Amino acid sequence: MILGNDPVLLTPGPLTTSPATREAMLHDWGSWDTSFNRMTQSVCADLVEIVHGQNDYVCVPLQGSGTFAVEAALGTLVPRDGRVLVPNNGAYCTRIIRILQRLGIAYVELALREDEPVTAAAIEDAFNGDPRITHVAQVHLETSAGLLNPLDEIAAVCQRHGKRLIVDAMSSLGALPIDLRRGGIDALVSASGKCLEGVPGMGFVIVRRELLEASEGRSPSLALDLHDQYTYMQKTTQWRFTPPTHVVAALRQALDTFIAEGGQPERGARYVRNCATLVDGMKALGLEPFLKPEVQAPVIVTFHAPNDPAWRFADFYAAVRDAGYILYPGKLTQVETFRVGCIGAIDANELHNAVAAIGRALVALGLKVR
Amino acid sequence: MILGNDPVLLTPGPLTTSPATREAMLHDWGSWDTSFNRMTQSVCADLVEIVHGQNDYVCVPLQGSGTFAVEAALGTLVPRDGRVLVPNNGAYCTRIIRILQRLGIAYVELALREDEPVTAAAIEDAFNGDPRITHVAQVHLETSAGLLNPLDEIAAVCQRHGKRLIVDAMSSLGALPIDLRRGGIDALVSASGKCLEGVPGMGFVIVRRELLEASEGRSPSLALDLHDQYTYMQKTTQWRFTPPTHVVAALRQALDTFIAEGGQPERGARYVRNCATLVDGMKALGLEPFLKPEVQAPVIVTFHAPNDPAWRFADFYAAVRDAGYILYPGKLTQVETFRVGCIGAIDANELHNAVAAIGRALVALGLKVR
Repeated sequence: MILGNDPVLLTPGPLTTSPATREAMLHDWGSWDTSFNRMTQSVCADLVEIVHGQNDYVCVPLQGSGTFAVEAALGTLVPRDGRVLVPNNGAYCTRIIRILQRLGIAYVELALREDEPVTAAAIEDAFNGDPRITHVAQVHLETSAGLLNPLDEIAAVCQRHGKRLIVDAMSSLGALPIDLRRGGIDALVSASGKCLEGVPGMGFVIVRRELLEASEGRSPSLALDLHDQYTYMQKTTQWRFTPPTHVVAALRQALDTFIAEGGQPERGARYVRNCATLVDGMKALGLEPFLKPEVQAPVIVTFHAPNDPAWRFADFYAAVRDAGYILYPGKLTQVETFRVGCIGAIDANELHNAVAAIGRALVALGLKVR
Repeated sequence: MILGNDPVLLTPGPLTTSPATREAMLHDWGSWDTSFNRMTQSVCADLVEIVHGQNDYVCVPLQGSGTFAVEAALGTLVPRDGRVLVPNNGAYCTRIIRILQRLGIAYVELALREDEPVTAAAIEDAFNGDPRITHVAQVHLETSAGLLNPLDEIAAVCQRHGKRLIVDAMSSLGALPIDLRRGGIDALVSASGKCLEGVPGMGFVIVRRELLEASEGRSPSLALDLHDQYTYMQKTTQWRFTPPTHVVAALRQALDTFIAEGGQPERGARYVRNCATLVDGMKALGLEPFLKPEVQAPVIVTFHAPNDPAWRFADFYAAVRDAGYILYPGKLTQVETFRVGCIGAIDANELHNAVAAIGRALVALGLKVR
């Protein structure tokens, strides 16, 4: 089984996984069998431990993509008469607003630029401006630009004002420090196929146990009812509906690899090295990052497209793909950009080679960068 | 990579898949990449073709388990002022009712025994008794007992009365003949990890195009909005949210295997042989099927538990599992039973060996059968 010719995914998930993680999917598992259900339990226990939620938090896994878990968290945890503050600096924040609209839950949008992190002061102003706000739905790392929002400060201001905080930690969990012991966070949502380096197909919500237990019967969806999923699993050890067994097995292996690597500090440090190698190399090619360094998370980097009328992302993508690297399109609304991920089972050497391939693609396409 | 010691799953999904299907998951795929999106398109095209829906139907894949797809179909296709008839002969019919309750959609339950298929006459009576009924939600093969409902007759009566028919074909699609050209079926729901012998993690809905196109904005859920998933995919060729890439790749391989085997007729014939071998062998051990042969589908068989006070399913399960076969618990509400699946990448020889292992387990546990 030679897989050496697969392209490297420089994308924010699905990403390049390790051979060991993929090989974990070579087994079938019975969804009623103890060996599988122990695996689910150990995955959930490890996920809670990664964010230091041991005493007060539980992890509820959910079939589907991360967005399914975000909708499940909002639909299960926010009362119908709640009002959710959504600081908005990108497409994933906008997606939360779309979900709230579908759920018929009131929200207040705190509009920001795509390169502008939210501040605790802006959130505090919003609380003071509308005391009916009960919850904050915060994207930790906005993948649209790769922007880092200051989670600790946001959690502190929510705690001070007694507001519930639901965090979309899709692209941050595992890569950036998150410590539930600091207080202020009620729920964290993430997924199997991001910085934990599993394969996509499963989301999860790490939630304050007492909050979850108080949310019986609230979800307007059966499939996306986190309370029902949790209580069934507590009672039977099993998932309510058919679990994505192979995805869970891959995540178990990916977590073993994560722990062996040294957990979040080492995973994060590797991504920082990847990101620095990428940004330095791209700057040497004349390609500038969209974000300022102080708000750039080491997960995915948005670059300005070359200022050349001949630029077409599709051609550039194809040329770099031919060299073995898969890039990601930009997701910004105002500026022409493209994105390069720094995450997955890859190291700085891979990013160095990717930059070289990008340089060759620019030459081959005759694109002027400056 | 020696996998010879994995137990055989005699369960209704997840089930035992072929090595080729599992090995398809040894590759990573970019969700934006053409090669992956072509794969999704080819999977959808093949799924429509299997049920002969080429001209008027489209296939919408959905992340998550089959139940997610059932809820998506009901939430997207049934207007809020619709009224759904649910013939109920098992747990999966009851689950449809729970979903309708959550969605706030009116329903009429047609209560049946767990060994009693619905009849076209009973459905017609229900239509005549309540003209407000707009839809029927029908489970084709009720996995609770393994019961086959007469789909063609049900479709015909729905067509005659102008009622919309949504079919949960979770455990039948691929194994039993379903022909959309006969008319009367508006949507079919199934999943990757059932009789197509893929791995679990993806559901799909094969739906009349014009019906889907008329359902914009109806779904109360963003994640489970089939119309939004469809139109986004039409526009971009991509999934709206991160797809379960490895599950899709496994299903592509499983469909290749399905087609090479000879499609539904041969797949169904193999399951019939598996089922006959199982039932004959079990009868020889003194273990009787719960259902009459004429309503028994060749997918999963419910057996009466031995009438011995020492019977405990957990012990029996463990003894058979030690011999390499994973059984399934009963799901009937009134009678003590257990279930044995006939589906997956296994043949009659495997079922013969499974029966032998069950026989040895009965002896080892000292269980009297008669």
